[in-house]
Amino acid sequence: MTQTASQPGMFEFQIKAIDNGARAGLFRTPHGPIETPVFMPVGTQATVKSLTPAQLEDIGVQVLLSNTYHLYLRPGADVVQSLGGLHHFMNWEKPILTDSGGYQVFSLGALRRISNDSVIFKSHIDGSLHELKPEFAIRIQESLGADIIMAFDECPAPDEREYNETAMNRTHQWLRRCVQAKTRSDQALFGIVQGGIFQDLRAKSAEFVSSFDLPGYAIGGLSVGESKSKMHSTIETVNQILPAEKPRYLMGVGTVPDLIEGIKRGVDMFDCVLPTRLARHHAALTRAGRINLSNAAHTLSSAPIDETCSCYTCRNFSRAYLRHLIIAKEMLSATLISIHNITTLVQLTKELRQSIMNHTFEATSKAWLQPNSHVQKG
Amino acid sequence: MTQTASQPGMFEFQIKAIDNGARAGLFRTPHGPIETPVFMPVGTQATVKSLTPAQLEDIGVQVLLSNTYHLYLRPGADVVQSLGGLHHFMNWEKPILTDSGGYQVFSLGALRRISNDSVIFKSHIDGSLHELKPEFAIRIQESLGADIIMAFDECPAPDEREYNETAMNRTHQWLRRCVQAKTRSDQALFGIVQGGIFQDLRAKSAEFVSSFDLPGYAIGGLSVGESKSKMHSTIETVNQILPAEKPRYLMGVGTVPDLIEGIKRGVDMFDCVLPTRLARHHAALTRAGRINLSNAAHTLSSAPIDETCSCYTCRNFSRAYLRHLIIAKEMLSATLISIHNITTLVQLTKELRQSIMNHTFEATSKAWLQPNSHVQKG
Repeated sequence: MTQTASQPGMFEFQIKAIDNGARAGLFRTPHGPIETPVFMPVGTQATVKSLTPAQLEDIGVQVLLSNTYHLYLRPGADVVQSLGGLHHFMNWEKPILTDSGGYQVFSLGALRRISNDSVIFKSHIDGSLHELKPEFAIRIQESLGADIIMAFDECPAPDEREYNETAMNRTHQWLRRCVQAKTRSDQALFGIVQGGIFQDLRAKSAEFVSSFDLPGYAIGGLSVGESKSKMHSTIETVNQILPAEKPRYLMGVGTVPDLIEGIKRGVDMFDCVLPTRLARHHAALTRAGRINLSNAAHTLSSAPIDETCSCYTCRNFSRAYLRHLIIAKEMLSATLISIHNITTLVQLTKELRQSIMNHTFEATSKAWLQPNSHVQKG
Repeated sequence: MTQTASQPGMFEFQIKAIDNGARAGLFRTPHGPIETPVFMPVGTQATVKSLTPAQLEDIGVQVLLSNTYHLYLRPGADVVQSLGGLHHFMNWEKPILTDSGGYQVFSLGALRRISNDSVIFKSHIDGSLHELKPEFAIRIQESLGADIIMAFDECPAPDEREYNETAMNRTHQWLRRCVQAKTRSDQALFGIVQGGIFQDLRAKSAEFVSSFDLPGYAIGGLSVGESKSKMHSTIETVNQILPAEKPRYLMGVGTVPDLIEGIKRGVDMFDCVLPTRLARHHAALTRAGRINLSNAAHTLSSAPIDETCSCYTCRNFSRAYLRHLIIAKEMLSATLISIHNITTLVQLTKELRQSIMNHTFEATSKAWLQPNSHVQKG
């Protein structure tokens, strides 16, 4: 494993402050450092939908997530590689994380067949037949060239115990194969803890995954329909076992309360399509909750989405204008609302990081959850 | 007319240089000066499709066009006015020109009925019945609050003589009514010359429209299917008659050769939906012609759209990436290609302006039309 492990120091994680369970950290990558806690917007097909990289930089985004399954099918990992790798291809020279394609493949339902060796699936684009397995998931991610790559895992519905146990065991064997398959020393491979909502399975999975000396660890299979209390207790169970000195990534989570609850329990990294997907469906995230901007109530509103937000959209555009764009079916509505929604989560993580440094995490998170208390922004 | 005329000096037009017939000018407006010749991108519904105002500023856009017909129907001129007028509504504090709605109403075909007094038409959105006439077109444009507003005109197909004569006479009577209806002194009303491809009608129309002391004049009804030679001779006929000391605006024209031929014949202003419409259909404008970026030939191309272009898109993205966005149906393709296409026309007018100052208009325009000659950029 010496040959394939990441170079020492290349993916150093420094914890700068802890406030109760919440951590403020710094994670070094070949494309620059990531201040944690961090929210990572999703650029499924090598683009965060409707936004330019310049707009993402302007928002203060530190790291993007992109998608092995989608890029493998289109344009092809070899195409991306021949064009200089994913960073150059999409013009994002800051850190990138690619997921393994596992989640997407298992979401295909009837279009895939699973064995212990691999998953055979039909492309959602043209129905063509493909096979994905741990070694190939790593090879694709090495071609794409992200800073952080993910182990190939199986992600079942969270409440079927038998299937979760089978899937967890398969995920463990696949992690071993991913570690062995990895050849690039400038990429950090994160292992993924599975086990659904079953605390004993989660504990077993966290123990197993922790037995590999990896630069980071992820919690998969949450935020897929389970109750909030199950989500929280699962995060607690897992984070008690994962090594404290490594970054922890809660996959697919991206609402204000979920980020706060995760950070409170020692999570460092999050990703979610929600801010951009909501934006395309006319919904804005705010401290006070979601706003549907297509609502007629906004027809004459000169107010921005959120008075407390300093994003480009809130500095320059009224709810009335955004509603007009929506009603007139203008693409700019998705762009402007996406800018606001991503800013909200980026700003949340920045303020929480500062509050951890100041040991005021509880007050700051409370202010976000109870916006009427009008606490000063950090 | 004293009361309703524009304030003296507010819309001053200075001609800085002339090179043969081509003019380099400066047109002052309440929202800042416009260096001519100028290309105005079209923001039909108070948005240049897929672009933020910040992106337009970055491109170097000086003035936008927006649309009376569309904004009257949605969100309503009163709504725009109550939100501080069009500049504030769409967050564009530089000059804006609104057209009168005439062109759109006449394009409705069977959905409209014309009389000497007005046009009654059905909304393309919900079929509701509306009446537009010169006084109302001015009232709407005064509510919207653009710097430059257009007279209400009738715009027929260019080759039916009888209808063109009728429409021209109606346009003349409507110009008189527009001048009388105008009340704001901080808006410049431009009259429109009609007459199709008939040189005697065009001459008559140019004489009539010139008889009003207006801050600018437009040539309507061209670039709608007539031959290039007819277009050029019509521009020549009209510009021999229009007062030399006022800006001349050729409506709806927006290709590289058409801009060059217009500027050569003394035109100062142009607008067209073409650069953004082409972008949404995957076509890029370049010095060497149009490129269809969805073409498989670009799959592995690391080249930008145009090696000689310094826009955000050409500085940062390959043809292969743009093709990937198109094939993956990602909105960002429209944004990035629109940035390039508008930049091309903005850059063209800037270089031609400089060449007029330098008395090298012919060489510069030739270099744009024959890009293989590799002439230095201005």
